[in-house]
Amino acid sequence: MTHERSDETRLARGKRALAEIDGAAGDKVIEALADIAPDFARYLFEFPFGDIYSRPGLDLRSREIATIAALTALGNAAPQLKGHIEAGLNVGLTREEVVEIIMQMAVYAGFPAALNGLFAAKEVFAERPGE
Amino acid sequence: MTHERSDETRLARGKRALAEIDGAAGDKVIEALADIAPDFARYLFEFPFGDIYSRPGLDLRSREIATIAALTALGNAAPQLKGHIEAGLNVGLTREEVVEIIMQMAVYAGFPAALNGLFAAKEVFAERPGE
Amino acid sequence: MTHERSDETRLARGKRALAEIDGAAGDKVIEALADIAPDFARYLFEFPFGDIYSRPGLDLRSREIATIAALTALGNAAPQLKGHIEAGLNVGLTREEVVEIIMQMAVYAGFPAALNGLFAAKEVFAERPGE
Amino acid sequence: MTHERSDETRLARGKRALAEIDGAAGDKVIEALADIAPDFARYLFEFPFGDIYSRPGLDLRSREIATIAALTALGNAAPQLKGHIEAGLNVGLTREEVVEIIMQMAVYAGFPAALNGLFAAKEVFAERPGE
Amino acid sequence: MTHERSDETRLARGKRALAEIDGAAGDKVIEALADIAPDFARYLFEFPFGDIYSRPGLDLRSREIATIAALTALGNAAPQLKGHIEAGLNVGLTREEVVEIIMQMAVYAGFPAALNGLFAAKEVFAERPGE
Amino acid sequence: MTHERSDETRLARGKRALAEIDGAAGDKVIEALADIAPDFARYLFEFPFGDIYSRPGLDLRSREIATIAALTALGNAAPQLKGHIEAGLNVGLTREEVVEIIMQMAVYAGFPAALNGLFAAKEVFAERPGE
Repeated sequence: MTHERSDETRLARGKRALAEIDGAAGDKVIEALADIAPDFARYLFEFPFGDIYSRPGLDLRSREIATIAALTALGNAAPQLKGHIEAGLNVGLTREEVVEIIMQMAVYAGFPAALNGLFAAKEVFAERPGE
Repeated sequence: MTHERSDETRLARGKRALAEIDGAAGDKVIEALADIAPDFARYLFEFPFGDIYSRPGLDLRSREIATIAALTALGNAAPQLKGHIEAGLNVGLTREEVVEIIMQMAVYAGFPAALNGLFAAKEVFAERPGE
Repeated sequence: MTHERSDETRLARGKRALAEIDGAAGDKVIEALADIAPDFARYLFEFPFGDIYSRPGLDLRSREIATIAALTALGNAAPQLKGHIEAGLNVGLTREEVVEIIMQMAVYAGFPAALNGLFAAKEVFAERPGE
Repeated sequence: MTHERSDETRLARGKRALAEIDGAAGDKVIEALADIAPDFARYLFEFPFGDIYSRPGLDLRSREIATIAALTALGNAAPQLKGHIEAGLNVGLTREEVVEIIMQMAVYAGFPAALNGLFAAKEVFAERPGE
Repeated sequence: MTHERSDETRLARGKRALAEIDGAAGDKVIEALADIAPDFARYLFEFPFGDIYSRPGLDLRSREIATIAALTALGNAAPQLKGHIEAGLNVGLTREEVVEIIMQMAVYAGFPAALNGLFAAKEVFAERPGE
Repeated sequence: MTHERSDETRLARGKRALAEIDGAAGDKVIEALADIAPDFARYLFEFPFGDIYSRPGLDLRSREIATIAALTALGNAAPQLKGHIEAGLNVGLTREEVVEIIMQMAVYAGFPAALNGLFAAKEVFAERPGE
């Protein structure tokens, strides 16, 4: 299960991975962190996206299923959950699949966590009316 | 996204779904709960498996990705995490994919949650030496 | 501890139980979930209220004590906590008792969780000025 | 909702309250903390039991319902959950009521939290065979 | 590690400790809790500040490092996190140190928890423009 | 607050940082992960230790205060908490200071979390009898 990394830098690879998942999110993160923790924006590109999401062992659709499930279950990161619902739709999940993932979390983290996840999805869906 | 349920009872449907995912788990749960909360065993078949996992909108492989991710992130349900790593392998996830899902949780729930998830996977893998 | 269920459907029983606890809440949930996850509204009536709250082994006042305590301790479901403070008052808890339950959570989940619970209670109490 | 405290010291009042709830638990805590954090044993008598559980606004049975619910939902304090299941039985909860409280937590914190709570109850019940 | 307490009352000692850490916070808490749980305001002075923060075994700067870290990691107490970022700056932490503590929580509680902590810090820093 | 990284690789820098904090821990992690997720061992050196702990903005003693506090509060990572209590002692915290940090968590995450943290510390202290 060792994964050989190409010569491309982790930063470049992370930016490319995040662009594939959610084009606008990267710029927003850099901007939001610029005056308080610019290094953290770099870490965010490098580790989650340059290291983890760029690994070949799991497709991006499956990775977003995992992330939407975890953020719904944890229940304390609404902005990031909305970002990954967006990302999930971008990499091929249907709205129905997103709803199924979130509903399933009622089993593992309780009905309030699932309900709050569904309302987050509702907001994301409403902002993408063209679909 | 409404899902019409067949005439089959939820209990029967849940038992069938759980048998498909993990053949031995159902009997163990009934036995463990028999003298303290037999109704809870029935609820466990009916709602998680008879209602949720039986829904057609998401395949079982994707459902197990979601569950493994959530239980790793929550970090307080080791026996259930092991059961669903087992279940994930049963419905088509490879060991490598299970490891990828769990490693990814370092991003959303921290490195200790991911490490403890990896050690749970290691135990499950060791108990299935034939693979 | 086995509980025989009458012929009444779980959905009907759940709607009746929720109506007894909080008359307006049921309609709000159906409406809020109508365009995103209508099945989840049905599950919400069926499992929590049709299965659990309808069981004879524990009175509704005690059930609401348990729910207010848990939601205060978990600290990530403010709308549901407010709903169950409302419900607790409806089934016979006094304001003082609600405050006692929430304060006690400082011991088990820390002072911030208790403080945030108290402020949720304050909002609910303010919306019921007639009492 | 102000509660006038008598002249009895908080430490004495807390020891008396804990003795009423669980006779043996107090001595065990003092002993376990003696060589590492003796002051913490005193705080444990004074704040949770001397301040909170001694307040007149909520009966001990209701307080233990709240605590059993919260510890089941949080899911990361198995020894304390078992102690309070013991305490709940001591102040008048029946085994059936304890089981009902814990099963209800499936709704608010997920089925794994409820299952683990039920298994904790099973252990406590087994250690009290005379009932 | 036993700590002898002076004759000063816990309430007075707690008020003094909180005043040293965050002058305005004490009055706000008393006012916010006055009509719902005035005793809880007293407990808040007495136990966290009168008992814990007043102990000689750890300096206030170290105590605020611990609190900022914990509240960032728990991720469900934004108002209290902001209050302790404020307090940390008051007892000698630099803005850079606050940012370092919060970034480090990405390792233990995930990137979303750290991001939300950084945005909380950004708000606090913006309200103290003179620095 | 940007931090220029030297030419030393992150992996080497992380190994050096972890060696400084806890000499034996690095080898144990590599060994434990070798057959299941060897890349994760590398990430663990690179991000937490190569990136975060190596940053100059906060001394190691302060970093360990933050980590001990967070892991005590989260309450679901006992092995890692013990590792960082060990690490904290290695970088200059006294046993008394470790106890103070953990006791303080009763305020933010409840008494059970603090108690379980104290018992973890007790085990670590017992394994270092020479002190």
